[in-house]
Amino acid sequence: MNYFQDILKARQRIAPFVERTPVITSQSLNRLLDAEIWFKLENQQKAGAFKFRGATNAVQNLSEEDAKRGVATHSSGNHAAALALAAKNRGIPAYIVMPENAPEIKVENVRKFGGQITFCKPTLQAREDTLLEVTAKTGALFIPPYDCYDVICGQGTAAVELIEEAGPFDILMTPVGGGGLLSGSAVAAKNMFSETLVVAGEPLEADDACRSLKAGEIIPADNPQTIADGLKTSLGKLNFEIISQYVDEILTARESSIRAAMVLLRKQVGIMAEPSSAVPLAAITENREFFRGKKIGIIISGGNISETLFYKLTKGL
Amino acid sequence: MNYFQDILKARQRIAPFVERTPVITSQSLNRLLDAEIWFKLENQQKAGAFKFRGATNAVQNLSEEDAKRGVATHSSGNHAAALALAAKNRGIPAYIVMPENAPEIKVENVRKFGGQITFCKPTLQAREDTLLEVTAKTGALFIPPYDCYDVICGQGTAAVELIEEAGPFDILMTPVGGGGLLSGSAVAAKNMFSETLVVAGEPLEADDACRSLKAGEIIPADNPQTIADGLKTSLGKLNFEIISQYVDEILTARESSIRAAMVLLRKQVGIMAEPSSAVPLAAITENREFFRGKKIGIIISGGNISETLFYKLTKGL
Repeated sequence: MNYFQDILKARQRIAPFVERTPVITSQSLNRLLDAEIWFKLENQQKAGAFKFRGATNAVQNLSEEDAKRGVATHSSGNHAAALALAAKNRGIPAYIVMPENAPEIKVENVRKFGGQITFCKPTLQAREDTLLEVTAKTGALFIPPYDCYDVICGQGTAAVELIEEAGPFDILMTPVGGGGLLSGSAVAAKNMFSETLVVAGEPLEADDACRSLKAGEIIPADNPQTIADGLKTSLGKLNFEIISQYVDEILTARESSIRAAMVLLRKQVGIMAEPSSAVPLAAITENREFFRGKKIGIIISGGNISETLFYKLTKGL
Repeated sequence: MNYFQDILKARQRIAPFVERTPVITSQSLNRLLDAEIWFKLENQQKAGAFKFRGATNAVQNLSEEDAKRGVATHSSGNHAAALALAAKNRGIPAYIVMPENAPEIKVENVRKFGGQITFCKPTLQAREDTLLEVTAKTGALFIPPYDCYDVICGQGTAAVELIEEAGPFDILMTPVGGGGLLSGSAVAAKNMFSETLVVAGEPLEADDACRSLKAGEIIPADNPQTIADGLKTSLGKLNFEIISQYVDEILTARESSIRAAMVLLRKQVGIMAEPSSAVPLAAITENREFFRGKKIGIIISGGNISETLFYKLTKGL
C-alpha cells in the first residue's frame, strides 16, 4: 500500500470528471498578513467542494458488480452531494443519510444530483444507525465520508495540483473535520517536498483532532457547536493514523476569527467560502508570527453557503 | 486641471463609500499564457462594477445646492445602478434612462438602489432625447456615464489601487466602451510609471474606439452587435482626448474569443465576469506573442451577469 502512488493513480482516474480548480493569490491579503498565501479554489469544484474528488475516486474504482448495488453514505452535506453526483456519473443510485440540521443549500445539492435522502438526528450514533438501516434495505455499498482509503487518495489530488501550480510551500494548510482532506493532503505534501510543514486549522469549539493528536489516540467530538458545520465530525481511524505520521501541527481558531476570516476571503480574495474553508486563514490570523514571511498553500474546501447565511454570519464585520 | 492630482483627490473623497477590491493572480492562467496577469476585481465593487467609483466621485463633489436637485443619467446598465446607489448614499433622488434591451440583472440593480427608471429605444439618440425630457421635468443634474471630468477621475482610482498592490506593470489593460475607465486608468498608469504600456481591449464587432484612435477623430458606433453589452457606446469627447494622449494601443477581440475568455476567467481564476470584463483577456489570447513574458494588470470591470446568461453565452466551451 503506497498512498502517494495511489493518489497519483486516483488523479488519473478522476481526471475526466473533476475540475482542475484555480490556484490564486491576493496581493492585498499577502501585504496585510506579511506572507504569500496561495488558495486552491475547491469551492469551484463540481458539487461545490473537494469532496467530489474522493467520492469520484471511490465510485469509479468499484468493480462493475459492486457498482450495480448502488452506494450509500452519511454526511452533513458536501460528501453527500459529492457522492450523489459521482454515482450519477456512473449511472448508479446513491442513498444519503443527512442530519436534520444540515444546511438547506447542501440538502438541495444532494437532491439536484438525484441522491435519495433519509434524514436523522444530528449525532454520529444516529447517522450510523440510520445508514445501517438504509444499506440493509437497499444492499448499497457504504462509501464513508473520510475514513476510507479510496476517499483519502481522491482528496489528496487537490494538494498535488496546488503544489504543482504554485509550490513548493513552506506550509500547506487545510481544515480538519473527519480528516479526509488533511490526511490526503499531508501524504501529497510530504512526498512532494518533505520539508513542507503540514498544518491544519480546526475550530476551537470542535478541537477533537487537536486533542487527539496530542493525546496519541482518537478523542471523539460530542455534538460540538461551531459555525464550521463541515468540521463537527470526529477523526476517522485511518485518517488519524496518517495525520499522526504526517501532520506537524493542528492550530485552533475561535468562532470570531472564523467569521472575520470569511470576510477577509470575501473582501481581499473575492471568495465566497463556507465557514469551514475559512478556518485555516483564521488560524493564521491568530498566529501571525508563526506564519510571517512564509509561503503558504491553503485548500479552500468548499463554497456551499447561501448569500443570506453568509451575511448573517458576518454581520457587522 | 491636473488629472492625476484629481484622481488622488477622488480617491480620498470616495474612500468612505467604495470597496477596496481584491487584486489576485492565477498560477494556472499564468502558465497557460506564459505571462503574469494581475486582476483587479471590480466585479466585487458595490453595485457590481467600477462605475460606482466615478458616480460616487461626481455625486459627492456636488455642492449642497446642486445635490438637492437630484441626479439623472442614461446608461445601458452599470453606470445606472452605480449612480442610483451613489445618490442614495447622499440622500438625493436618481432618475435613470435605460435602453429597453438592457440586461434584466442591471435593471434590477437600479431598482434595488431606489433609482427611478425611464426606458427608451436602444440608440444613443433616443437615450439623449429621453434624458432631456427627464431632466427638463425634474430639474435633476445630468451625470454622464463617461464623458465627464469627475467621473473619469473616479474611475481612475481602480488603476491606482491595482498598481499600488501589484505594480509596476509592463502593460495595464482595461476594456473600452465610452472610455471612462480607460481614460482614468491611462492617466493613473502613465503618471505612476511612465514606461507602462496602456492597452485597451475592444470587441471587434464594436471597434469604434480602435478606429477613432487610428483616424485621429471620434468615429461613432452605430448600434453594434456584441455580447459585451457594456462596450456598445461611442467614445466620449473628453475620453477621446485623454485616450489619444495616453493610450498606446487598442486591440480588438472576436466574439468567440470573448466567450472563451469568460470561461478562462471562470475556470482558471474563479471569476464570474460579464462579457465586457473578459475582452482584455480575449485580446491577450488573440495576441499571445505581444504579451508573452509580460507582467500585466487588468481591471475586471464588472460582474453583473446572471448564471443563466453566463451559461447560455459559454455553452459548449
